Amino acid sequence: MPGMSIASDFAEQVAREARRLGGLGLMACTGGNLSVRCPDGRLLVTPSGVDKCVLLAEELLPCDHRGRSLELARKASDEGALHAALYVALPDITAVCHGHPPHAVALSMRVGTALEFAGIEMLKAFAGTTTHDCIRRLPVVDNHQDMAVLAEAVLARIDEHVPAVLVRGHGVYAWGRSVAAAGRHLEAVEWLCRVRLLAGQAGWAAAGA
Amino acid sequence: MPGMSIASDFAEQVAREARRLGGLGLMACTGGNLSVRCPDGRLLVTPSGVDKCVLLAEELLPCDHRGRSLELARKASDEGALHAALYVALPDITAVCHGHPPHAVALSMRVGTALEFAGIEMLKAFAGTTTHDCIRRLPVVDNHQDMAVLAEAVLARIDEHVPAVLVRGHGVYAWGRSVAAAGRHLEAVEWLCRVRLLAGQAGWAAAGA
Amino acid sequence: MPGMSIASDFAEQVAREARRLGGLGLMACTGGNLSVRCPDGRLLVTPSGVDKCVLLAEELLPCDHRGRSLELARKASDEGALHAALYVALPDITAVCHGHPPHAVALSMRVGTALEFAGIEMLKAFAGTTTHDCIRRLPVVDNHQDMAVLAEAVLARIDEHVPAVLVRGHGVYAWGRSVAAAGRHLEAVEWLCRVRLLAGQAGWAAAGA
Amino acid sequence: MPGMSIASDFAEQVAREARRLGGLGLMACTGGNLSVRCPDGRLLVTPSGVDKCVLLAEELLPCDHRGRSLELARKASDEGALHAALYVALPDITAVCHGHPPHAVALSMRVGTALEFAGIEMLKAFAGTTTHDCIRRLPVVDNHQDMAVLAEAVLARIDEHVPAVLVRGHGVYAWGRSVAAAGRHLEAVEWLCRVRLLAGQAGWAAAGA
Repeated sequence: MPGMSIASDFAEQVAREARRLGGLGLMACTGGNLSVRCPDGRLLVTPSGVDKCVLLAEELLPCDHRGRSLELARKASDEGALHAALYVALPDITAVCHGHPPHAVALSMRVGTALEFAGIEMLKAFAGTTTHDCIRRLPVVDNHQDMAVLAEAVLARIDEHVPAVLVRGHGVYAWGRSVAAAGRHLEAVEWLCRVRLLAGQAGWAAAGA
Repeated sequence: MPGMSIASDFAEQVAREARRLGGLGLMACTGGNLSVRCPDGRLLVTPSGVDKCVLLAEELLPCDHRGRSLELARKASDEGALHAALYVALPDITAVCHGHPPHAVALSMRVGTALEFAGIEMLKAFAGTTTHDCIRRLPVVDNHQDMAVLAEAVLARIDEHVPAVLVRGHGVYAWGRSVAAAGRHLEAVEWLCRVRLLAGQAGWAAAGA
Repeated sequence: MPGMSIASDFAEQVAREARRLGGLGLMACTGGNLSVRCPDGRLLVTPSGVDKCVLLAEELLPCDHRGRSLELARKASDEGALHAALYVALPDITAVCHGHPPHAVALSMRVGTALEFAGIEMLKAFAGTTTHDCIRRLPVVDNHQDMAVLAEAVLARIDEHVPAVLVRGHGVYAWGRSVAAAGRHLEAVEWLCRVRLLAGQAGWAAAGA
Repeated sequence: MPGMSIASDFAEQVAREARRLGGLGLMACTGGNLSVRCPDGRLLVTPSGVDKCVLLAEELLPCDHRGRSLELARKASDEGALHAALYVALPDITAVCHGHPPHAVALSMRVGTALEFAGIEMLKAFAGTTTHDCIRRLPVVDNHQDMAVLAEAVLARIDEHVPAVLVRGHGVYAWGRSVAAAGRHLEAVEWLCRVRLLAGQAGWAAAGA
């Protein structure tokens, strides 16, 4: 059953990346979630309320294209709906991840509607960016508990050059054409925010902040 | 012996969570302790003076409901009495944990009798909080070496919405309906304090501080 | 085939050091690269776009002395050319490594053409420095996407006492007479920059900044 | 051979503690060293220039009571002489450790001849301190490359209540009645300095700084 083994391969990728991001401290307090879109359109989503640092592939929840669980016995996370909305809006992407990176959340408490970064090599961690000599604006949106409202706010602010959105006081949604790319984009946002805060201590003009 | 295996299962949960919290740096210098209340009312408490990062289930100390060792050869930690007092005051909880999270302790040196948090998604890590759109006040009490005095101070300040108390210059006591919940509450307090300090660097108004 | 086993031994050293530096957070977002010069003049270079924390020796790419892949099926990283240029300019060195240490990059956004360190024991981590009682100037150069331009900028600023150059907004190139020395030099630059930022918070006069 | 097995047990303790302290980031850049005094007066000292995170017991160097190698083929670290001087001055101690904790070194660049701590529970990590309600002064001495001069400076400043001395711009020497105690004292000094720096960001009056 090739379909099975493809799904199983995707599940392994998601579980491994969840453990990696958890180990980096981006998935604190059992928070955060990852998903992958399989070739048949189904989603595999991490369960909520579990420690991502020790997540196994068999714990992933198969969901339909709207993020609803395909297993009667298990309910999908509410945030699955936001993953599903991103997959609809961005047909080319294969994976979505969401985490609570502390430096990004800290910066989100201080800024308006975007965080501007320029002249940093690490911007090349974003797929499609090939030089440090550019300006990238990470969109910042307000938080909502209603997933439909939050999804709308996130979708309205997607920037073609930045594969992530920062939700104020909450965390980051990032996506990509592979599980590895989505995870790398989340990691890169936190790295950029951390360096910005460190440089700020040293006096860097917080342009765009 | 079902009682044995339940106790053994609880002991495994406590040891695993102690190793996890130790690995996160919340149990520095052999400090900190965790306990679970078994269905028969007995407590299982981590021994003092050992590195929590490598704690094994068989090292846990069985104690009576007042935190006194049931093994003649081994004395329980003095802090077991505070765990016991929390179990009496909060009949619904199953686990208590105590650690020395550095950001929380640092903030405790600066504030009065509470630390106020508002508008942060991570507040939902506290059992019973379902929205970021709320205000939560983490009680801060002065430290005492007399466990009876400290226990009284902690019990007097328990907030129904916040499953933790911060002891000034000392650390955090957190509790929950499961070992995982108690540990998550300790982790969440440190995350919130860390983000507050990081945001403070960026200029966030330290409301309530 | 002794040549084979020497190459294999070098490859193991590079892979192990890459995992170590990755684990220290100096190779974020699949960034960074390491190389070694084998006795026959060939280079072994880490592949780009992979997580250095789990790199295996067999993944290294054999390259000629100009950093061009010797395997038709795999292209070397563009940055291999800078490694090659360093090996030409510095005949005594055996290894080069490049990473994105966050504190060093943060400081690079604030300074002019050098970062000055004095009176720090850790300067002895630099091969050839035998006392803390000295001044060492870490060269800082502007970033370029054109590897030939960046290589020229780096080579023009090599300091005989400092086995590393900091590229503004980008990262650090470090080198040494062994794989371990090159990695230690990268680690030392980040340690020095981190302590400088920490001391700056405490009010240390940022001499040279 | 009971003597052998005692030495072997001590060696295991030292290697394990070295790996633990290395993993905590207190032994950066192959720096730092640990030693134990065996019942027969011989010392077992970690070799210099190796990564402490992966140190094995068999790598330890047997030395005489003055810190001189008992193996013709291997030379002891220069810093072994300072360990030996501490063992002479403090007949009750069994272990000495030295590391480069970043927060402690950063604070050392700012202070005079001592760092004062008061009202912190973690002071109880120091053997003999049984309450937070006390003042402890960590001696700070200037750095010297001449081990005899540095040893004299350290010995002249030993405080009966504080099992450690901070060497400016260099690192910390800590000791104790067991390998675990010496390591815990080093860890505690760094924890105290880290919390002080974090609290300083929040505005804590840096008394004694």
